[in-house]
Amino acid sequence: MNVTFRGQTTHYRTVAFQEETNEVWLIEQRLLPHEFQRVRTRDYRQTAAAIRDMVVRGAGAIGATAAYGLAQGARSFHGRDLARFTAHVDAVYQALKEARPTAVDPVNAMDQVRAALAGGQTVGEQQALALAAAEEFANEDVRHCREIGRHGARLIRNGMTVLTHCNAGWLAFVDVGSATAPLYAAQSKGKRFQVLCDETRPRSQGATLTAWELAQQGIPHQIIADNAAGHFMQRGKIDLVIVGSDRVLGRTGEVANKIGTYTKAVLAKRHGIPFYVAIPLSTLDWNLRRGFDIPIEEREESEVLGARGMPEGLHCRGKGRTYVRVANPASGALNPGFDVTPAELITGLITPLGIFKPGELWARRRDLGAPR
Amino acid sequence: MNVTFRGQTTHYRTVAFQEETNEVWLIEQRLLPHEFQRVRTRDYRQTAAAIRDMVVRGAGAIGATAAYGLAQGARSFHGRDLARFTAHVDAVYQALKEARPTAVDPVNAMDQVRAALAGGQTVGEQQALALAAAEEFANEDVRHCREIGRHGARLIRNGMTVLTHCNAGWLAFVDVGSATAPLYAAQSKGKRFQVLCDETRPRSQGATLTAWELAQQGIPHQIIADNAAGHFMQRGKIDLVIVGSDRVLGRTGEVANKIGTYTKAVLAKRHGIPFYVAIPLSTLDWNLRRGFDIPIEEREESEVLGARGMPEGLHCRGKGRTYVRVANPASGALNPGFDVTPAELITGLITPLGIFKPGELWARRRDLGAPR
Repeated sequence: MNVTFRGQTTHYRTVAFQEETNEVWLIEQRLLPHEFQRVRTRDYRQTAAAIRDMVVRGAGAIGATAAYGLAQGARSFHGRDLARFTAHVDAVYQALKEARPTAVDPVNAMDQVRAALAGGQTVGEQQALALAAAEEFANEDVRHCREIGRHGARLIRNGMTVLTHCNAGWLAFVDVGSATAPLYAAQSKGKRFQVLCDETRPRSQGATLTAWELAQQGIPHQIIADNAAGHFMQRGKIDLVIVGSDRVLGRTGEVANKIGTYTKAVLAKRHGIPFYVAIPLSTLDWNLRRGFDIPIEEREESEVLGARGMPEGLHCRGKGRTYVRVANPASGALNPGFDVTPAELITGLITPLGIFKPGELWARRRDLGAPR
Repeated sequence: MNVTFRGQTTHYRTVAFQEETNEVWLIEQRLLPHEFQRVRTRDYRQTAAAIRDMVVRGAGAIGATAAYGLAQGARSFHGRDLARFTAHVDAVYQALKEARPTAVDPVNAMDQVRAALAGGQTVGEQQALALAAAEEFANEDVRHCREIGRHGARLIRNGMTVLTHCNAGWLAFVDVGSATAPLYAAQSKGKRFQVLCDETRPRSQGATLTAWELAQQGIPHQIIADNAAGHFMQRGKIDLVIVGSDRVLGRTGEVANKIGTYTKAVLAKRHGIPFYVAIPLSTLDWNLRRGFDIPIEEREESEVLGARGMPEGLHCRGKGRTYVRVANPASGALNPGFDVTPAELITGLITPLGIFKPGELWARRRDLGAPR
């Protein structure tokens, strides 16, 4: 998407590759919203470190970063020995996989790259095929998000207020985003609407990343405390909810997403407000039988006990971030990272193939890419 | 309640009066939980300033502070001229009333003191009656809270997890508190239970004040993000919800309380979890006909855009507090301070006279102190 920084507007992808220098370019997401900065990784080890250290985060974005990282690693090999090259590629694959061991997207992305690469007869051919496959992975991510936008934009009418939770924006993908895609598509059609961003404690991705994205695109928006959405629904001030997801169960339509999503769905149901979940197909899990079995990450207490901010307040003087202690020093905290929203609370799933009711997923699983 | 500070345990009230020096003693609540400090006001102007600057907050606490402030002002009058004394008392009353112009508790408390004072024949008699009435107001606040505790403790069984929202604790009253009273009473009966404290963004009173209170009394507790309560209910980890209230409509049973209360009530209803509201009788509003008409305070954006903490993190080096900017600098915020929970979501109201269903209030209004 376009970013305006120091008076200049430029189109960036969250993840990009520079062929001549064999570098992966990323947006340094840990500095947002306080500073916009792009960083480049010069070899696959740096790329793995960028994934591990959360310079880049979000399912689509880390998938593309790993795909590019595998191509980058393959292209750094010197020599013609195919056996040694294959061993080298395996080592690169492992290094990138271990950067975020619980994430499934880097593995899926790299598997595509490795399958494509196998079609080459020489090291040179395989290197070229690896890069082409990584580019195709990234481009497909963007195409999927654009399709989500095309389908989802129909839901947005002039004058609406749309509630979002957390960040499933272009920063979490290669471009455009999932939950944000309908917003950007509606804007490009000239529709006028506004967005309420849940702050999304404890990591505040709504107040930081989503609010930054919307501000960059000039979409009118306000940040609200997570506590406030129910009140605004009660007063008739919210017309539509769109969130992303980390995993949707194809068998049941249950949606795992950032902690607090469930609460917003319960509230939306009560108020008759449509609650949509925007996802690429890669988010669908066709194996798990019930949402209760989705593992819920327990995250560190400090996120709840403090608030991450810049020490100088409005200023940002480097990469040092700090948790400013807010809570009682003698108290502990519980900190699950996600929750599970049952199907009955989901009005529809916006996918690249259209909008589906959760109960339709299983019957339509062949169209939606479930393995036979 | 007892406070352990620098190794010493002492019983304090939130608001107290020292007759010999004509001083009001308050807990400096703006420093909590990072530092425990008591402050004294030497004249009614300082007392008014303490109310205005939120050294003291909470309905019962500011009521008692104003009552004592009026007695303090009356007692500082020198002379025997009853007309001049009465004019002086009126000026004191105005100064204390204007310290928090929208709050009803200081006015109700001072009206009691002024009514009592009128029974005296001389300046000296009226001064003595003023102090006695202020003491009686404070003592009644404590008695009411203890009764809430006695009734509410029956709801708490061994092994339970109780969810709280915001702070309706002893810091908000003269002692004991409303929503916390059942917890303290159950603890004193030897019951074992734990508490989850909603952080209560944007001002984080749960993570700061309630967590500090519970830690002082040794009640096991954890702080959770406001987003997390739904998830814990879904997993069967919450057995009971107890909150306070700023206003309960006697006609309808609707409850106005800190933003986010409504959301928790909707979630509790969905999960069949009892949702109780603990209030003194002074919280009942017998006039307003519907909750929609309760004015909702819109508070400053900075509370949502940043997180108030100590600049040095764990250390506190004075009274300076800062909002550490978390949110996107180019984004605004909406910040209502309260919301309204309808009667159907309230399991019961714990009052000094027992526990009532919201729908019973109007029929029982005479018992509950409604004017004829």
